[in-house]
Amino acid sequence: MSTSFANVPLQWVGPVKITGPEIDVETELPLATYETPLFASVNRGARVATASGGIKAVVIDERMSRSVLFEAPDAIVAFQCLEKIKAEFPKFGTVVATTSRFAKLIDMHSQIAGNLLFIRFEFTTGDASGHNMVTFASEALMNRILELCPALKYESISGNYCSDKKATGVNGILGRGKYVVAELTIPEKLVQKYLKSTPEKIVQLNIRKNLIGTMLAGGLRSANAHYANMLLAFYLATGQDAANIIEGSQGTTLAEVRNGDLWFSVTIPNLIVGTVGNGKGLPFVEEVMQKLGCREPREPGANARRLALICSAAGLCGELSLMAALTNPGELMAAHRKLERI
Amino acid sequence: MSTSFANVPLQWVGPVKITGPEIDVETELPLATYETPLFASVNRGARVATASGGIKAVVIDERMSRSVLFEAPDAIVAFQCLEKIKAEFPKFGTVVATTSRFAKLIDMHSQIAGNLLFIRFEFTTGDASGHNMVTFASEALMNRILELCPALKYESISGNYCSDKKATGVNGILGRGKYVVAELTIPEKLVQKYLKSTPEKIVQLNIRKNLIGTMLAGGLRSANAHYANMLLAFYLATGQDAANIIEGSQGTTLAEVRNGDLWFSVTIPNLIVGTVGNGKGLPFVEEVMQKLGCREPREPGANARRLALICSAAGLCGELSLMAALTNPGELMAAHRKLERI
Amino acid sequence: MSTSFANVPLQWVGPVKITGPEIDVETELPLATYETPLFASVNRGARVATASGGIKAVVIDERMSRSVLFEAPDAIVAFQCLEKIKAEFPKFGTVVATTSRFAKLIDMHSQIAGNLLFIRFEFTTGDASGHNMVTFASEALMNRILELCPALKYESISGNYCSDKKATGVNGILGRGKYVVAELTIPEKLVQKYLKSTPEKIVQLNIRKNLIGTMLAGGLRSANAHYANMLLAFYLATGQDAANIIEGSQGTTLAEVRNGDLWFSVTIPNLIVGTVGNGKGLPFVEEVMQKLGCREPREPGANARRLALICSAAGLCGELSLMAALTNPGELMAAHRKLERI
Amino acid sequence: MSTSFANVPLQWVGPVKITGPEIDVETELPLATYETPLFASVNRGARVATASGGIKAVVIDERMSRSVLFEAPDAIVAFQCLEKIKAEFPKFGTVVATTSRFAKLIDMHSQIAGNLLFIRFEFTTGDASGHNMVTFASEALMNRILELCPALKYESISGNYCSDKKATGVNGILGRGKYVVAELTIPEKLVQKYLKSTPEKIVQLNIRKNLIGTMLAGGLRSANAHYANMLLAFYLATGQDAANIIEGSQGTTLAEVRNGDLWFSVTIPNLIVGTVGNGKGLPFVEEVMQKLGCREPREPGANARRLALICSAAGLCGELSLMAALTNPGELMAAHRKLERI
Repeated sequence: MSTSFANVPLQWVGPVKITGPEIDVETELPLATYETPLFASVNRGARVATASGGIKAVVIDERMSRSVLFEAPDAIVAFQCLEKIKAEFPKFGTVVATTSRFAKLIDMHSQIAGNLLFIRFEFTTGDASGHNMVTFASEALMNRILELCPALKYESISGNYCSDKKATGVNGILGRGKYVVAELTIPEKLVQKYLKSTPEKIVQLNIRKNLIGTMLAGGLRSANAHYANMLLAFYLATGQDAANIIEGSQGTTLAEVRNGDLWFSVTIPNLIVGTVGNGKGLPFVEEVMQKLGCREPREPGANARRLALICSAAGLCGELSLMAALTNPGELMAAHRKLERI
Repeated sequence: MSTSFANVPLQWVGPVKITGPEIDVETELPLATYETPLFASVNRGARVATASGGIKAVVIDERMSRSVLFEAPDAIVAFQCLEKIKAEFPKFGTVVATTSRFAKLIDMHSQIAGNLLFIRFEFTTGDASGHNMVTFASEALMNRILELCPALKYESISGNYCSDKKATGVNGILGRGKYVVAELTIPEKLVQKYLKSTPEKIVQLNIRKNLIGTMLAGGLRSANAHYANMLLAFYLATGQDAANIIEGSQGTTLAEVRNGDLWFSVTIPNLIVGTVGNGKGLPFVEEVMQKLGCREPREPGANARRLALICSAAGLCGELSLMAALTNPGELMAAHRKLERI
Repeated sequence: MSTSFANVPLQWVGPVKITGPEIDVETELPLATYETPLFASVNRGARVATASGGIKAVVIDERMSRSVLFEAPDAIVAFQCLEKIKAEFPKFGTVVATTSRFAKLIDMHSQIAGNLLFIRFEFTTGDASGHNMVTFASEALMNRILELCPALKYESISGNYCSDKKATGVNGILGRGKYVVAELTIPEKLVQKYLKSTPEKIVQLNIRKNLIGTMLAGGLRSANAHYANMLLAFYLATGQDAANIIEGSQGTTLAEVRNGDLWFSVTIPNLIVGTVGNGKGLPFVEEVMQKLGCREPREPGANARRLALICSAAGLCGELSLMAALTNPGELMAAHRKLERI
Repeated sequence: MSTSFANVPLQWVGPVKITGPEIDVETELPLATYETPLFASVNRGARVATASGGIKAVVIDERMSRSVLFEAPDAIVAFQCLEKIKAEFPKFGTVVATTSRFAKLIDMHSQIAGNLLFIRFEFTTGDASGHNMVTFASEALMNRILELCPALKYESISGNYCSDKKATGVNGILGRGKYVVAELTIPEKLVQKYLKSTPEKIVQLNIRKNLIGTMLAGGLRSANAHYANMLLAFYLATGQDAANIIEGSQGTTLAEVRNGDLWFSVTIPNLIVGTVGNGKGLPFVEEVMQKLGCREPREPGANARRLALICSAAGLCGELSLMAALTNPGELMAAHRKLERI
């Protein structure tokens, strides 16, 4: 097996201004995708965002999870072991510390179904997205628990209650990755000028398409038009494991008319990115990281949060642009025809 | 904006034998991902599959969907218009024919919520994954309906009842992309030799992790360990829009012990691939398509179905390998440490 | 085992006017529940509805489903059998006719997962909710299929793809029970007078609580405040199997400000009621049915649809009243304290 | 409005023996439903359970939740307020104590979407199911928070992140009501004698119908055949608010063949019952409570947990009986025909 490369077209769009408690930058946004009409779409969003004074973005929470799975002889024993494990929780931090300098255990949740015991460990993982780090730490915790509770047996280091790269409810509720909100207010005139739409139309469409339409489709916290497109492109451009767009796609677009202007926001509760780890050693990724200011000496985790904030801005720009386009009959298809020369 | 490339490591693994009503091939599998340990994992699955006589795979269904969204003054009018639209359905094929040689309208579903009317059109789209083709066709259908029902107003060419790149239930139930099942039977001895596990252990883990664990996580038809990883890698290697792994990830792994051997299957109801369209013009993609035998002169759609079948085999190989690894405490982490030199 | 009775408090509230393509009535609404504050709440909704000119209601669709489950040796055989079954579908109506005068087969959907084949039969069932009728018909169809496809084996007369009394996506998408929408417009002044609120507040709360809040909770098509309460009470008062409120609870409240007034609607896609069958022979149920006008000589199904429309009106009245109450801090708790003398 | 009664047929079935950390009783089970074939079905389960040595049952967790909803000007302010609220959490217990002797605040979870802040308070509530108690306590907490964070505005005392009587994922993950598991082991011979089936058939059917079938249906943690039926009947017989079967229906049946015998379990994470509150003052309910031993002087909460454990046993008996019946072609329909004289 010899390695070559899949060459995915990469462009920088923008720039866009992003501010918030942890960020204050004007930056271009890197995107890599075969669906090249996305470049123009995100770029339009960036232009109107910058003209409107920029995007505000904040990290609400961050954690990476791994759920281990034990078999007990019956539910009562599973319950008694769980009580023991909860009592031991304060000592688990030292177990984790033996496995990593960066992993910190911050919480633990559990499920019992019949005789099965699932424990979901939640960690901060510095600047890594943290999948391997939490697997290694959970392995140590699992061994500790098996010593503590000889009645339990190993079933799996991952019991799908994590949940990794699958459409589930648990990640939105308990957290996985960076929980990020990006928002901005666009004056009514700029909505018209750049987006050929009105605040009222965009707000109404968001309710009807993203909130109601997704709900009718049996959707799982996926009240948005196309986060997956921007996340895929940003993840590929920055050396991320893009299979994590599954979790990332489960976010929420909210919009309101405020004093005649458009307030628009994207909430992405499971944005999974890192500035170190697999994919980051590639030369072009290193360049991208430097250009984004994610190679500065900062406390552990700060560069990854910065990357997440920039990513959320890319998400906002693309979401805004498509939502506006959809308010006009025929615009979406015309844009594709023009950009792809269909 | 100048275009460069994100260079994603690409390897061919296997070969693996794949047979079924539409395929009979022994082929290597192309994978492109930053998560390079995946190469060895899928390769292990391919080796045991080939040693066991190969994988059987079948396309159960294929269609691409677009849901348009209308506003009615109230529910009664929405209902009356829907009745008219249903009566007109037999004539819609000719409307679609004006937009594409390849798009064929095959079904239509609807939802009414309050005064909103969602119509989900379903098409076959030849060898394209078909997103643009169905948008264009739906635009024409929407215009036809607006003529037919002057009481309706355009709200959106896409109402999220499609659903595109979002975790929803509708795609699994009504269909989107190729609905593919791949399966094989592995003699007990080969399970031990190649996978260091037993049929019983793998079957039990599948029930507990993929079926029960995902269910506890609030999962939506995602009873698998990591389809997203293989789909991402195969999609990137073959020039697909990899944001479609959202739908692709919602599939089901089933396993049984049969006469002491392991029967193992992956069901992927929303595998969205094409052999023409965006991304396909890149030179390396052209090479990949040729090597996979997807550039032969076949009836429209046959090359895309072939690609889907090969993709499902890649999914099976990776799923099998990880599931086996998880039955052994410590194996997953040890493999990552070895392959990534952590 | 001797039978006594659980005596559930029953009241008639209203009256309320209901009109639509199949109904034109002013009627009181029967409710039976231990949660007696509900009586006053629904009554308030009925009063404002009547003062506003009444409720419009329409049955969009009706069907009852049963999904049978077969085992095939593998996926390819499952697929080949499914093709045969689809080809035979036009003849299935005569099979069904041998089992019931009222059951009519109207559609069929399927799922294949690995070697398992699920067939969901959908019927109209006259004035019965139809659970037994469709089981009996499906039994006959299953036998017919087992003759047609000797490779298949019986696994279950119900494969949970029906789905009966469980929170799933399939019923909302494919239909189960009566699909009903009820709506009304309330002048701004009457919103203030009867509901102590404003159209704007109720519309905003509906977006934030029912659409966004439910979505964040990982909800499945349950964008409402408390349909389950009204459905339970109406079902108990009319002799229905109240376990069917599981499906009934998965509906959608939509509201809009229109010319300063409040447009308010409830969409209940899985309202499962009948005027014949279990529970209907009880004397008080017979009285209730007569009072509701559901014992008139009508074509099969018409009395059950009438009952569903009246039920949807009860749902609307209770939903409206609670939503309005929630817009005022403290009102909900004060009402409970007053009505329950806590 | 004058009150009469809906008379729902009530029978006692069993007896059945139930043991566990908090219970040791042999009791009959009260059921009230219009679907009277259920009596015989649960009774069969109770007989085989008792012949097998009885049911073991355990309460894993208990809590009642209410989610309040605030509006912030933007996401950053929402985040800053949330940080303040978290810091103040240790003082919230005293706020709650002013509202109730029984309510104890045990945990708090939150969601931010755009500028909206949802706080889910979780309490133990003694012997009450606790809906009113937590509303009253949450009202006080909400007022405290509005003082603490003047930037926030009241939006609703309930934001649907509770979630009350709706099909959502949050209750299974964060808890609502009693989290109960009931289980038993039935010797192979008794499976044959009482249930006319085999352990292998029941285990296989559970995997295929309850786990796989529900998952294909887009189900939300509802891997069971018909919990809703038993919960409805038990709730009505014991004066509960039966609309809470929505949450109760989202549970999991697991079964295994163990040494040739059948291990069978029901996990009901959201069983919402109380021994005080609405409905409990009715004379027949008082009799039922006394007969079930739920009127003994015990520490607050113990009588309600006892009731939940007995309820879970009823759930197990009915689930077991139906699952066994489904393994035999024709048995379900034959039983209905016999019992209902169709």
